[in-house]
Amino acid sequence: MKLEGFKGIIAATITPNGSSDEVVGAYLDFLYKAGVRGIFILGTMGEGAKLSPSTREKVAGRVVEAAGTRFLKIAHVGCSDLESSARLARHAQEIGADAVSAVAPFFYRYDAESLANFYSALCTSTGLPVLVYNNPGRQGYSIGLGDLARVFELVPALRGIKDSSGDPDLMLELKCMFGSSHFVACGGDHLLYYAFSIGVGAHVSAMAAIYPELAVGIMNAVERGDFAEALRLQQAVNRARRTLRAVGPDTASYRFALSLRGVDLGPPIAPTRRLRQEEMEQLSRALGPINKLAEDAVKRA
Amino acid sequence: MKLEGFKGIIAATITPNGSSDEVVGAYLDFLYKAGVRGIFILGTMGEGAKLSPSTREKVAGRVVEAAGTRFLKIAHVGCSDLESSARLARHAQEIGADAVSAVAPFFYRYDAESLANFYSALCTSTGLPVLVYNNPGRQGYSIGLGDLARVFELVPALRGIKDSSGDPDLMLELKCMFGSSHFVACGGDHLLYYAFSIGVGAHVSAMAAIYPELAVGIMNAVERGDFAEALRLQQAVNRARRTLRAVGPDTASYRFALSLRGVDLGPPIAPTRRLRQEEMEQLSRALGPINKLAEDAVKRA
Amino acid sequence: MKLEGFKGIIAATITPNGSSDEVVGAYLDFLYKAGVRGIFILGTMGEGAKLSPSTREKVAGRVVEAAGTRFLKIAHVGCSDLESSARLARHAQEIGADAVSAVAPFFYRYDAESLANFYSALCTSTGLPVLVYNNPGRQGYSIGLGDLARVFELVPALRGIKDSSGDPDLMLELKCMFGSSHFVACGGDHLLYYAFSIGVGAHVSAMAAIYPELAVGIMNAVERGDFAEALRLQQAVNRARRTLRAVGPDTASYRFALSLRGVDLGPPIAPTRRLRQEEMEQLSRALGPINKLAEDAVKRA
Amino acid sequence: MKLEGFKGIIAATITPNGSSDEVVGAYLDFLYKAGVRGIFILGTMGEGAKLSPSTREKVAGRVVEAAGTRFLKIAHVGCSDLESSARLARHAQEIGADAVSAVAPFFYRYDAESLANFYSALCTSTGLPVLVYNNPGRQGYSIGLGDLARVFELVPALRGIKDSSGDPDLMLELKCMFGSSHFVACGGDHLLYYAFSIGVGAHVSAMAAIYPELAVGIMNAVERGDFAEALRLQQAVNRARRTLRAVGPDTASYRFALSLRGVDLGPPIAPTRRLRQEEMEQLSRALGPINKLAEDAVKRA
Repeated sequence: MKLEGFKGIIAATITPNGSSDEVVGAYLDFLYKAGVRGIFILGTMGEGAKLSPSTREKVAGRVVEAAGTRFLKIAHVGCSDLESSARLARHAQEIGADAVSAVAPFFYRYDAESLANFYSALCTSTGLPVLVYNNPGRQGYSIGLGDLARVFELVPALRGIKDSSGDPDLMLELKCMFGSSHFVACGGDHLLYYAFSIGVGAHVSAMAAIYPELAVGIMNAVERGDFAEALRLQQAVNRARRTLRAVGPDTASYRFALSLRGVDLGPPIAPTRRLRQEEMEQLSRALGPINKLAEDAVKRA
Repeated sequence: MKLEGFKGIIAATITPNGSSDEVVGAYLDFLYKAGVRGIFILGTMGEGAKLSPSTREKVAGRVVEAAGTRFLKIAHVGCSDLESSARLARHAQEIGADAVSAVAPFFYRYDAESLANFYSALCTSTGLPVLVYNNPGRQGYSIGLGDLARVFELVPALRGIKDSSGDPDLMLELKCMFGSSHFVACGGDHLLYYAFSIGVGAHVSAMAAIYPELAVGIMNAVERGDFAEALRLQQAVNRARRTLRAVGPDTASYRFALSLRGVDLGPPIAPTRRLRQEEMEQLSRALGPINKLAEDAVKRA
Repeated sequence: MKLEGFKGIIAATITPNGSSDEVVGAYLDFLYKAGVRGIFILGTMGEGAKLSPSTREKVAGRVVEAAGTRFLKIAHVGCSDLESSARLARHAQEIGADAVSAVAPFFYRYDAESLANFYSALCTSTGLPVLVYNNPGRQGYSIGLGDLARVFELVPALRGIKDSSGDPDLMLELKCMFGSSHFVACGGDHLLYYAFSIGVGAHVSAMAAIYPELAVGIMNAVERGDFAEALRLQQAVNRARRTLRAVGPDTASYRFALSLRGVDLGPPIAPTRRLRQEEMEQLSRALGPINKLAEDAVKRA
Repeated sequence: MKLEGFKGIIAATITPNGSSDEVVGAYLDFLYKAGVRGIFILGTMGEGAKLSPSTREKVAGRVVEAAGTRFLKIAHVGCSDLESSARLARHAQEIGADAVSAVAPFFYRYDAESLANFYSALCTSTGLPVLVYNNPGRQGYSIGLGDLARVFELVPALRGIKDSSGDPDLMLELKCMFGSSHFVACGGDHLLYYAFSIGVGAHVSAMAAIYPELAVGIMNAVERGDFAEALRLQQAVNRARRTLRAVGPDTASYRFALSLRGVDLGPPIAPTRRLRQEEMEQLSRALGPINKLAEDAVKRA
């Protein structure tokens, strides 16, 4: 699927960890049936940075193949080192991904000129569209609007951005400044309603990897002008998000929540510990109403 | 050289980037002559996290070989993913390093049990002693005393820790709790005087990679009870550190400062930009007195 | 004016500092004509915490008197100490304010139970409605949804909240949990569009103290469903906000921006320094287009 | 007692809250007998910022009178507003304090020039020596070495500084730059050993308000060159500090710890809640060994 003109929910998919092809296929079917039309592979909730480059290649290849042509397939290739990111970007093209995205390089902090070096090298390494992925909490530093604009100016080959800063002001500016020339996606689940309502048409959503009905439901409700419904679902998303962040390591709790939907993609990727029994029970209780809401949304649709 | 019983300055060496073997050898000679007896390879100021695992292997092999037996050689193997860290730890043994150290896994946050999983797997992957490297500013989260103690309890194979938290309280506790059973090194240049004065015998120092005379001078001055001299040199270290952090990307400014000492190990590793002309001039001016102090220290010794 | 049922823009007014009654009156006329119907006196941008309790009483009395009955008048009474806050809350009633609000007590951090003690004592000290004011950046600590809910539970006399956390998720939850029983106002200028669009009917806005036309314009545009216009104005607000925070101390730059609208309320309250000549020139240039936009909005209305 | 030439432990005293004169006198005797020779009244652990200016005046007057001439008496006069700070500084002179100190004004952030305005006005308001009090965690912003040097340059009437930044580098620089011309005191309990060992002769210590024997013991041990003893006591101080910060609101836990020493100065100042029963029990258990250490230190001295 082409990046250009894409609108819709892009699930930041949970990564299979020892799962069979059947389960992976069933997971993608589950997402598709709920209205998801894009996948962001090996991103933050996809635990990409916990896998070695060669393992990432294998996993990405497998997911891209299972996804087929019905999804926009964005491979996350961000690493702390440029060489591995470039290798993954090259590989993403070979396996048939539609685009790549890389979080700003982490561990060190980089200024606009250094970031431009990074993204410029990525653009050279692959024929696929390259998207910036701005996630201050993970990369360890903020990149302001001025610096982002400078990066886009220095690297005309860049094709867009996924912004997970959580800053509504930055989202609006990115949409206004780059929305007509670049692919602009929002990346914060608590901003699903906001981003769609200001006209950001694509959303990379970790919650959509578990509750695709809710994310898709918000998008559709905004589109048809039913804000009350959009907010009702947004509130459910916020509650799920707060719960999942409060109990256990989040990469473990997100996986567990998905298993409550009937899709078991395996334990968290090492070295993250598994959830304890009481954490699983606490999550089961707290997420019960969200599960029900998601399933009702299916029935109503 | 054996980790056990090692005392002294361990330079967190700058990483050769396109330099000849002659230059690498001359760099290690420079450090040795100034009294450095250990090297920490590909650590934070060594830009390890900017290199792919395979490039790290090559560079580590080259530096370990050039260093020979006159240094304690610790290879930094920390990555965002356990698999690559374990691979580098295994490789470090093959090339003849004396120990490995890994910063707490970054990008995600890990609790004590997950950290224990990480370090336990590292210990299994290599026959070399494994050291925790705690650097909250880089790994992105703090690990308190209680969590560190828990990790050591869960992973008896761990042999020690390099603490770069900059917390004098934590340093003292680590020394008291683990100093007799484990290798405990301090990792903050502004704490050289403090750490030696409380009896922490080993110090991993980025400043020693540029001004080894100052770091060694502080150690020696504390040992002979000349606190005034130790503080005079500590103050010079602090000033150099503040200057190097204030002008340009620090991985670029540290390299440049080393070139002012006559050792050019090449430009910063991509994607970090090179220093601008005015930054180089500013650093040259500001570091002039520190250079002179370091060279005088050589003459006096 | 009554707090109950109030909807609209509440300007977080700039505080007169040596200005004549004429100027104060003209300022309030300016706000009223632009559609502002509430004022938040001596809040954060009103520099209340820079004045002694007795001076705050005098200034509040003067502004409340000048405002008359055409505005909802909320006096900000937050201090680092409860005794002074309670005194100001009592005094606010004497001078005829309509409500009081107090930022969570600052300098120290307080848990939910201690916060409940604070707000409970305020409610006892005055017959006016008391509103929590949550501003993590100023009070120095975050208060999560759970803690806020606990405070409201422990202090039934509390009448509402002004939330300046900037967290869209928290805003939505406060509206859903307390919107029908309490007065809920949003307090972040970058969230004007968002808050009105999710149905939060009152907004305390620092930008409305300078560009009331923009804040009111956003509210009206959302109400009539003209989201494009709302976002156009929101973007202007965001740009003004970014500019005002980037040049000089913000309490000085906000005053200066107001003087560019023709209302000079005097220099910043001590000890904040005045703007330098070049800062004033930079602001004049950068704010020119915003001024024009605000004045055009007047003409069109 | 004169500020000039003062060396020793200055206890950041707990503030009497409803206590009789007898108890206040007994508290000061307790401190004096343990070797404390200075008191810092109504500072951070003294809960000054929780009291109104007029209450602060009363309390300060009472403590200064009870202290008599055997202590150096520094009144903390920092407020969020300059007017109240100046009033308290004036009053401190009337009641016979020896010096005043003010934390950098809080709630807002101030640059060097604005801070100079603040301290200059304080110097004008009183005939007593005025000391800067730098506490980034409380005032809400850091003041770097360059800014502090600028403030001292702009306000020659300033007589010194109490630095509670916890930054060993800054402490060393302040001592070297201002130690011969100004009064320089350290303010972090975890830096007692460090500060004395680098020659900072005065220490404002919250722990000395509860365990004066430990703080005085560290000072004496450093002076006679018994570093092992100094570190043993420093470790006890660190453990007490960690415990007191971990259980309950710290202003409540410090008071409770003092009551375990036999001095009950009343409940925490409102609105801070009282400790719960289980918190008191937890503290009693955890502090038992520290109490014993302090009492043994008395016997041995």
